Amino acid sequence: MFETPKMKPGNTVVAARDKLLFTPGPLTTSLSVKQAMLHDAGSWHFEFNALVASIRARLLQVARVSQESGWETVLLQGSGTFGVEAVFQTCVPPQGKVAVLVNGAYGERMAQMLAHARIDHAVVRTGEDAPLDVGALKTCLESDPAVTHVAAVHCETTTGILNPIEKLGCAAKASGKVYIVDAMSSFGGMPIDLARCGIDFLISSPNKCLEGVPGFSFVLCRRGVLLACEGWARSLSLDLVGQLKTFEKNGQFRYTPPTHALLAFSQALDELEAEGGIAFRNERYRRNHEILLIGMARLGFQPYLPRELQSHFITAFRYPSTVTFDFEVFYRTLSDRGFIIYPGKLTQVDTFRIGNIGRLFPADIEQLVCAIEAVLGEMGLSSLRKQAKTLF
Amino acid sequence: MFETPKMKPGNTVVAARDKLLFTPGPLTTSLSVKQAMLHDAGSWHFEFNALVASIRARLLQVARVSQESGWETVLLQGSGTFGVEAVFQTCVPPQGKVAVLVNGAYGERMAQMLAHARIDHAVVRTGEDAPLDVGALKTCLESDPAVTHVAAVHCETTTGILNPIEKLGCAAKASGKVYIVDAMSSFGGMPIDLARCGIDFLISSPNKCLEGVPGFSFVLCRRGVLLACEGWARSLSLDLVGQLKTFEKNGQFRYTPPTHALLAFSQALDELEAEGGIAFRNERYRRNHEILLIGMARLGFQPYLPRELQSHFITAFRYPSTVTFDFEVFYRTLSDRGFIIYPGKLTQVDTFRIGNIGRLFPADIEQLVCAIEAVLGEMGLSSLRKQAKTLF
Repeated sequence: MFETPKMKPGNTVVAARDKLLFTPGPLTTSLSVKQAMLHDAGSWHFEFNALVASIRARLLQVARVSQESGWETVLLQGSGTFGVEAVFQTCVPPQGKVAVLVNGAYGERMAQMLAHARIDHAVVRTGEDAPLDVGALKTCLESDPAVTHVAAVHCETTTGILNPIEKLGCAAKASGKVYIVDAMSSFGGMPIDLARCGIDFLISSPNKCLEGVPGFSFVLCRRGVLLACEGWARSLSLDLVGQLKTFEKNGQFRYTPPTHALLAFSQALDELEAEGGIAFRNERYRRNHEILLIGMARLGFQPYLPRELQSHFITAFRYPSTVTFDFEVFYRTLSDRGFIIYPGKLTQVDTFRIGNIGRLFPADIEQLVCAIEAVLGEMGLSSLRKQAKTLF
Repeated sequence: MFETPKMKPGNTVVAARDKLLFTPGPLTTSLSVKQAMLHDAGSWHFEFNALVASIRARLLQVARVSQESGWETVLLQGSGTFGVEAVFQTCVPPQGKVAVLVNGAYGERMAQMLAHARIDHAVVRTGEDAPLDVGALKTCLESDPAVTHVAAVHCETTTGILNPIEKLGCAAKASGKVYIVDAMSSFGGMPIDLARCGIDFLISSPNKCLEGVPGFSFVLCRRGVLLACEGWARSLSLDLVGQLKTFEKNGQFRYTPPTHALLAFSQALDELEAEGGIAFRNERYRRNHEILLIGMARLGFQPYLPRELQSHFITAFRYPSTVTFDFEVFYRTLSDRGFIIYPGKLTQVDTFRIGNIGRLFPADIEQLVCAIEAVLGEMGLSSLRKQAKTLF
C-alpha cells in the first residue's frame, strides 16, 4: 500500500524543502527550531537543568500566570495524550468521579483513559457539530454528587470546534469541582485566561501552536491542588506529583527527558517571543485561516462547522456532495506537490481536515489553495469550482 | 547553584563542539544522526509510516529474531522507564504477581512501578555488588505459587553490573512464568539470545547502545504472549496491545510520535549496520572500557565492582579513600574541559560513574583520562597517582 519512503534520512539527496504540513501536528517548524537539535545535552548536567527551569518559567509567562499566584509547570515525556492521562492517573482520588464532556474523538479518548484506569466517570455527550453543553454539565453535577472532577477539550481537533471552556469552568467551580482542560490544539494560538476559566490543570503540547517538535507534553496547574494528590498516582511514569517534586528538588526530570526536543522547544519559545507573543501568533493563524476558508469556498469545498463555532487552527471540510471524491487520490496527488493535509475523524460524515498552524504564513496557505485547484483539475473535478459559484 | 546555560540554543555563538557525554545516556551521537532531525515528518503520512515499519522490522533483525518465529516490536513514546512500566501495566493480569529481582536503582524502580499500579509483587533483593541470585529466585518461585511473572534488569546501570539473565530465564521458564527483561543499557552493545534466555518481553531504548536520541522506548516481545493480555491494561497511553494493534492496522502510532527522534533512530540503525552490527559495536565498547579501566587505575581510581561482574558499558568508581574528594569540583572542572561524567547512585558507597557508550571511540576515552589527570592536578590531588602505583 505504501510507497518506498522518499524521505529516507541520511541519504545525500533529499528534497530541497520538506513537504509542508497542514495538519494538527506534528507541524512544519522553523529550520532554526530543528537546528537547535544539533546538540547532545547531558540530562543530568547543570546547563541542561537550567534550560529546563527556563522552559518551565517561560511557559508560565506565556500563560500569564506566576509561581507567586500558585501556578506551576510540569513537563512530561510522551505525547499530549500522556499528559492528559497523567492528570487523571495522578489527580483523581480512589473514590473520585470525573464528568467528561465529549463532542469528538479527543473527548472520547478521555473517557477511554478513565475506563483503563478504572476511574469512575460520567460522559456528557453532545453532537460533533455542537459545542459542549453547559446546561447538560450543570444537570449532571446537580444529579450526581459523586462527581469530583470536570474535564473538557478546548479545541476538539476532530472538527476544529472551539468549546466554551470559561462557561464550563464557571459551572464546575460553582459546584466546587476540580477542572481539567485539554488545550492541546489551542494553547499558544489564542489567549486563555486560566484564572477566569477556573482551570486547575491545563494540558498542552510543544508541537502545536508553540511550534516546537513532539516528544513531551506540559501541564500548567495550581501547585497546591497537584501536591494535594500525593499518593493517588496509579502509574509511576505518569505521576505528576513525583515529577514536580523532582523538578523542585534538583531541577531534573525523574527519567530520561527528550533532550533534543527540549532544546528545540527553548528555541521555539524564543521565536514566539520574537513574533510578538500570543497576540501576534493568534493574528497570523487567523489570517491563515481566513485565506484558507475563502480559497476553499472558491474551489467548492464546504466547512463542516458553521463559522461561529469554528476555531482558527484546524478546519474539517466535507467531501464534495456533487461528485465522486476519492480522498486517497486527492491526498496523494497533493502530497506529490509538496502539501500534506489530514484525513477526517468524524463518525457520521465524510470529511478531511486542513490545519493552518505551525511555521505557515498566508503565502503558504495561498500556495496550498493553488495546489488544491491544480489537483482538482488533474482529477477532473474542476466542475466543483463552477458549482461553488452558485452555492456560495 | 547552577551557572547560566552556556549552551543556549539559537545563539549564533556556540561551542565548536559539544561536550562529550560519558554517561549512561542520553549520549553523544553522531552529527549525521542529529542531522536526520532537520526534517518535519507528518505522523499520519505514508512515507513516515513506512519509516516506522522499517524501524520495527530492523529492530527484530538486530535482535536476531523474526516475525515468522512469533516476535514483534512495539515502539512507545516516552523514556525507557515508560516502556518497562507499559509491560507491567499491560501484561500482568488482575490477579497476577511479579517476582522482581533487585540489585540496584533500576530494579527498585520496577518495584515502585508495581506498587503504583497496585500489582502484587515479591522483591528478591541482593546486594548492589552481587549479581541477581538465581537460587533465591528458585526459592521464591517454589514457595510462592501466586507468582506469574519474573522481571530482571540485565545491566543494572547503578553499578554497571551484568546480571545472569539466561540462568534467571531458565528458572522462570522451568516454572512456566512470563519473563520480562529490562535491557536498557545492554541491548545493541552485546549479543543477547532472546530465545535461549527465555525472554517474553525485552525493553530497551534508542539512546543507549543503539546511539539514537531519546524520545521513545521499544519492546521486543512474543506477539502471542502480548495479544493474550488484551483487556488488562490499566493505562491507555501505556497499553502495548492497543499500540501493537494500531501498528498492524494502519502502520501508525496511536498518539503523536516523536517524529524527529524516529528519523534520527533510522539513521542510527544505518550507522550500526555500517559499523558491522552488534559484534563490532560490542568490540568498540570493550576497547573503550579497557582503556578507561587501565587509565583510571593509573590515576588511582578503583572500580566499585570486581572485573568479572562489570559490564563494558558503564563503570562506577569509588571516591578516593586517601584524600578529601570534592566530586562537585571534580565534575565541574572536567565539564569546563568538555567532558561530562555522571554522579553515583549507590546507597552505601560514594561513587561516580563513567559511561563509554555512544559515539565515543578509544581516542575519546584517552582524552578523557588525560583531562581527568589534568583536573586532579588542578585540584591538588596528583598524589593519588603515586599512591596508585603502590595500590595496584
